[in-house]
Amino acid sequence: MFKFEITFQSPSSKARLGRLSTPHGVVETPAFIFCATKAAIKGATAQDMRREKTQIILANTYHLMLQPGPDLMAKMGGLHRFMGWDGPMLTDSGGFQIFSLGHGSVAEEVKGRRGSSRPKSLLNINEEGATFKSYLDGKKHTLTPERSIQVQRALGADLIVVLDECTPFHVDKSYTEKSMYLSHRWAQRSLAEFQKGPEGIQELYGITQGGVYPDLRKTSADFVNSLPFFGHAVGGSLGADKTQMKEVVEMAMEPLDPARPVHLLGIGGVSDIFYGVEQGIDTFDCVHPTRLARHGGALVPAALGEGREHINLRNAQFREDQRPIDETCECQTCRTLSRSYLHHLLKAGELLAMHALTLHNVHFMNRLLEGIRHAIAAGTLEEEQKKWVG
Amino acid sequence: MFKFEITFQSPSSKARLGRLSTPHGVVETPAFIFCATKAAIKGATAQDMRREKTQIILANTYHLMLQPGPDLMAKMGGLHRFMGWDGPMLTDSGGFQIFSLGHGSVAEEVKGRRGSSRPKSLLNINEEGATFKSYLDGKKHTLTPERSIQVQRALGADLIVVLDECTPFHVDKSYTEKSMYLSHRWAQRSLAEFQKGPEGIQELYGITQGGVYPDLRKTSADFVNSLPFFGHAVGGSLGADKTQMKEVVEMAMEPLDPARPVHLLGIGGVSDIFYGVEQGIDTFDCVHPTRLARHGGALVPAALGEGREHINLRNAQFREDQRPIDETCECQTCRTLSRSYLHHLLKAGELLAMHALTLHNVHFMNRLLEGIRHAIAAGTLEEEQKKWVG
Repeated sequence: MFKFEITFQSPSSKARLGRLSTPHGVVETPAFIFCATKAAIKGATAQDMRREKTQIILANTYHLMLQPGPDLMAKMGGLHRFMGWDGPMLTDSGGFQIFSLGHGSVAEEVKGRRGSSRPKSLLNINEEGATFKSYLDGKKHTLTPERSIQVQRALGADLIVVLDECTPFHVDKSYTEKSMYLSHRWAQRSLAEFQKGPEGIQELYGITQGGVYPDLRKTSADFVNSLPFFGHAVGGSLGADKTQMKEVVEMAMEPLDPARPVHLLGIGGVSDIFYGVEQGIDTFDCVHPTRLARHGGALVPAALGEGREHINLRNAQFREDQRPIDETCECQTCRTLSRSYLHHLLKAGELLAMHALTLHNVHFMNRLLEGIRHAIAAGTLEEEQKKWVG
Repeated sequence: MFKFEITFQSPSSKARLGRLSTPHGVVETPAFIFCATKAAIKGATAQDMRREKTQIILANTYHLMLQPGPDLMAKMGGLHRFMGWDGPMLTDSGGFQIFSLGHGSVAEEVKGRRGSSRPKSLLNINEEGATFKSYLDGKKHTLTPERSIQVQRALGADLIVVLDECTPFHVDKSYTEKSMYLSHRWAQRSLAEFQKGPEGIQELYGITQGGVYPDLRKTSADFVNSLPFFGHAVGGSLGADKTQMKEVVEMAMEPLDPARPVHLLGIGGVSDIFYGVEQGIDTFDCVHPTRLARHGGALVPAALGEGREHINLRNAQFREDQRPIDETCECQTCRTLSRSYLHHLLKAGELLAMHALTLHNVHFMNRLLEGIRHAIAAGTLEEEQKKWVG
């Protein structure tokens, strides 16, 4: 049932169209994966997500292994059945939250592996795995590569991911190299554990490491290429800023096996997605669209954003604005509600504001990626980018 | 466009079936009216409400006159357009919140006019109207009968209500009588203001007063019957407890013109609704179903409630319960989600819990009233009550 076919390769860049088949359906790539962290999209049902054209969502192993726990989840028939989502799904390894959460800023959480320090809840990393304190009750837990796979088996997502050490950004090359080899050994153990399970139910992604160092990126790509992973994720530090991120993504992608689907972890800005697509990235994920919605932000195309990728409906300028967020958007919110009403809901502290903006931002991302797919086929990616980013 | 037809009168009680026609559609009565206090159902869109079979909703004049204000609302095309609800709608007069809110307990807010003291925000009541401090910014406002009608004209709900003094419960007969006559004078002023406006766009409900005193109830009913109100609401104190409430509703209903639709303000318990229906009440409203949902409560028929009208999904007993809330319920939540998952969402503090339980409770109330309508026609109201209440 699992298959990744490249249906079109752009002649002018590494951008491509693909069909990622899973037992729960096909994902047309490039695609955006929405974060249902604790087995729930914050503020939208599975039915809402479908209606707003969502292809695939992900859930976080870290949160779910602690609450409600993998045993309960298996007993309840797995994540799909538990949360009522019958489409393709991915889980991460749980590592990201252990190694990188707790730094504080949203940007760090969004952008992923950039912190300069470790979270206080991380007690120890050694060859075996990582020991950490639960965010819920402070209890000590150990996550090993084997345990991560076992938990992800119990959760039952279609696509699952090896455990890696999320290397902090401000470490030297020697640490990055050591960390890379540790992650490689963990990847082999993850794969070995994975191969004990039944075939055809889930598929495993390896993660390419190597930080900001071209030679390490090459070594790591060669390593993951050599193992029978279904797909690859771009991991490790992506650098200090957007410019460096682009360089790192480029050097990470260059040596990766182009036949496998590639996921870029934790990236969801509109211009970043265009860059990633041009580098051959097939899937993206980020909490940004749904989190932004909960803070009053609505994603908009370039013509409406006045230089930004979103507008904030809390602003007084929208008080009497009878237009929908975006007249060209066909989400339920834009079809039925005005900016003025959304502004009122936010001012009045109404729950419905978060829900309505979540529906819009979800639809926006799905429409953005649909536009990108059409533009790849038509060879008009640059024009498409102007429409969305300016 | 406005019409109230009684399509069936039970031979064994005052229960009846009706069709309440408005420019935004027909309400089959008895019906439940959901509270969209600040022009939003907390946790559900207009589309959700329709899908879960809602006929009619209400919004609160008190909240909306303060935020976003009647001028903005009129400018935005009125409540229907503002909130994207194209069905029948009612607004109250704004009086209830001024006279009775701020007492503290949920029960008082739910049950209405029962407080023994006045809220601190109420500054003064005199012949002219009531002066109060805004719950938002403490600013002084005066609500008169004329102003209430003007605001409700601007909001544009189909059914609107006269301003009355919500008499506290623990006052003597002499205060109740004086208050009743004040409310009668306000009702006449409300009607006079209403009659200045265009015909056929909105219709006005009078409110019958008289507290717990049979002779005053008779006097007040005669008064409202004599004026050309479209419908009547049962107002004034309903007594100290459920037993007294039943007596008061009976004595209030007895002398009321049976040709007009009657609304019972602020009552939404399942057994109370059965009682009201038997007394000839046509519509009910209450924040209870949607508020209960936000606290983890799901309304259930008698067979599932173990003596209560709801179950609380927070309870540990639901942790591994794979059943839907109610296997006989066809709401989106019961069709797709288990008690176990809802329990998880509540434990994890996920927004989606409130949304999913709101959908269920809305559907429950609509299904309850549908069941009641069928039972009235079939002469099986007693059996129907056993099914829902036990």
